[in-house]
Amino acid sequence: MTKPLALTLGEPAGIGPDITLQAWLRRTALELPPFYVLGDPAFVAHRAKLLGLQIAVAEVQPEQAAHAFATALPVVSTGHRVTALPGRPDPTSAEAAIGSIRQAVADVQAGRASAVVTNPIAKAVLYRAGFSHPGHTEFLAELAAEGGATPQPVMMLWSPVLAVVPVTIHVALRDAIEQLTSPLITSTTRIVAASLRRYFGVARPRIAMSGLNPHAGEDGTLGGEEDTIIAPAIATLRNAGLDVKGPLPADTMFHEAARQTYDCAICMYHDQALIPIKTLAFDEGVNVTLGLPFIRTSPDHGTAFDIAGKGSANPASLIAALQLAARMASRSS
Amino acid sequence: MTKPLALTLGEPAGIGPDITLQAWLRRTALELPPFYVLGDPAFVAHRAKLLGLQIAVAEVQPEQAAHAFATALPVVSTGHRVTALPGRPDPTSAEAAIGSIRQAVADVQAGRASAVVTNPIAKAVLYRAGFSHPGHTEFLAELAAEGGATPQPVMMLWSPVLAVVPVTIHVALRDAIEQLTSPLITSTTRIVAASLRRYFGVARPRIAMSGLNPHAGEDGTLGGEEDTIIAPAIATLRNAGLDVKGPLPADTMFHEAARQTYDCAICMYHDQALIPIKTLAFDEGVNVTLGLPFIRTSPDHGTAFDIAGKGSANPASLIAALQLAARMASRSS
Repeated sequence: MTKPLALTLGEPAGIGPDITLQAWLRRTALELPPFYVLGDPAFVAHRAKLLGLQIAVAEVQPEQAAHAFATALPVVSTGHRVTALPGRPDPTSAEAAIGSIRQAVADVQAGRASAVVTNPIAKAVLYRAGFSHPGHTEFLAELAAEGGATPQPVMMLWSPVLAVVPVTIHVALRDAIEQLTSPLITSTTRIVAASLRRYFGVARPRIAMSGLNPHAGEDGTLGGEEDTIIAPAIATLRNAGLDVKGPLPADTMFHEAARQTYDCAICMYHDQALIPIKTLAFDEGVNVTLGLPFIRTSPDHGTAFDIAGKGSANPASLIAALQLAARMASRSS
Repeated sequence: MTKPLALTLGEPAGIGPDITLQAWLRRTALELPPFYVLGDPAFVAHRAKLLGLQIAVAEVQPEQAAHAFATALPVVSTGHRVTALPGRPDPTSAEAAIGSIRQAVADVQAGRASAVVTNPIAKAVLYRAGFSHPGHTEFLAELAAEGGATPQPVMMLWSPVLAVVPVTIHVALRDAIEQLTSPLITSTTRIVAASLRRYFGVARPRIAMSGLNPHAGEDGTLGGEEDTIIAPAIATLRNAGLDVKGPLPADTMFHEAARQTYDCAICMYHDQALIPIKTLAFDEGVNVTLGLPFIRTSPDHGTAFDIAGKGSANPASLIAALQLAARMASRSS
């Protein structure tokens, strides 16, 4: 039987539990891969009741999850009792969210799950509880570290119409410019190319790389980073046999005809990558962390405290994240 | 009779003449507004022949253009003979391109034309001939200057699905950050709001303004310009009675539902504005210069020397520029 996906609880006061329940309800219609939640079974059952959903919650071990999935939402207890109400994180929130992530990683590393899918967390809530990582992804990278070497996590935003990877991510725009180096571009691109081959069924990945400046610097008249940083990185990657074109003007990379010419766009900073994908595929984007020793996907949105527990949260991105994680796992197994 | 549009020749070796001829051929099917070209009538006729197009070229004065338009492509001579071949700018290119722009501005200022529509120029060709303006738009602003005061030109990219305005434009990304000031944002936005009222039929313009940094700075953790520069500008604009919201995370401003909530997006730099519009409306985008004492639109592409004279240039953006100029003129008259 297929190994199940390990789905974290995320911030319990957010919409994670809501969209998890909604996704499970659509398991048959959408032929969703089996998954289990790592959390407090009583809390999950309570949220279902609050939302007026007739959903059986089955407390299971990971090994029983795939079998249970057809008739109940399988929940593997992390031993943390959760009392947070929708929209109101409480002291149980952080412990439960962190415990869920830790156990999901342990499960996938032990071969009990095929991939990790994470529900949204609230960084501010975790920081107040002493969490010291910049974000979800960095925490996962540290949990994945074996023998002291922490892998370089690479964030890909994937959708059926476009996949993008920003080289610099959650930093101020002026810091992104400072942090941009040829080695960062080459290491990121190598991870992307290897992942496209291993997990996405792309035998010979075609990479399109943006410039940093308008018109990719227009031959140096609008900035020099294309010549000093990006073009040398592309030369290195091509010498290593990779199919990389660029630096390309970012504004003309993402229309329909352009998108047919590559498998993934590598962009220099956050908005350059996220504007096109969120413009084209707002509800169906999936956040994929590449470079880890396991598969991790995530919906591409936050905790949405304002609509938690109200029944209006859209499960589309979580569903896409579950489907993509299962496809990636089946290709790499 | 409706006043015609004054259409500049642009770089004669580029695709401007090609798309002009193609646009005229579709005048009846698309009910295009009457326009005339400012250039060398013999050159235009020669290009038509080269392209295998059966098009009569009528040398006219602006006053006769609207009448002539039905049966021939009206060309008003600027007195510059043009010998440039497709893809090969020659010494006649710059004089003809500049002379055409000058005369178009003179015509619209004298009331002989309702608006100026410009074909693409090749800045490198003009620079070699001694042209000293950063670009087309700045040259138009100087021609428009009356009594020494040069107006602030504002670049809008318009399409049926989205209108955007970058506050900083053709500068390196790090210079864009340095050039961003509250007064620049407020003066730009005032011009946009006034233009939406005067030319676009929007009685109460709704403006959406982006942040500079990822997630609009995420409460200051990803950059401070939102707090120090953008929010104060928004406060000033709101105090002046304008409907401005922001600073908004740029990546979530451009999906379909978000676009319904505003009439124009003001962005902080080139790619933030141009990525979404070129992703959504690559062939139909129109470059509109606001802030001048006359209407000016332009196709949103360059000279495309590589396909000039070959018959494959797409006239869609020029056609959209002609149609928009005519609509703007009819609303403001």
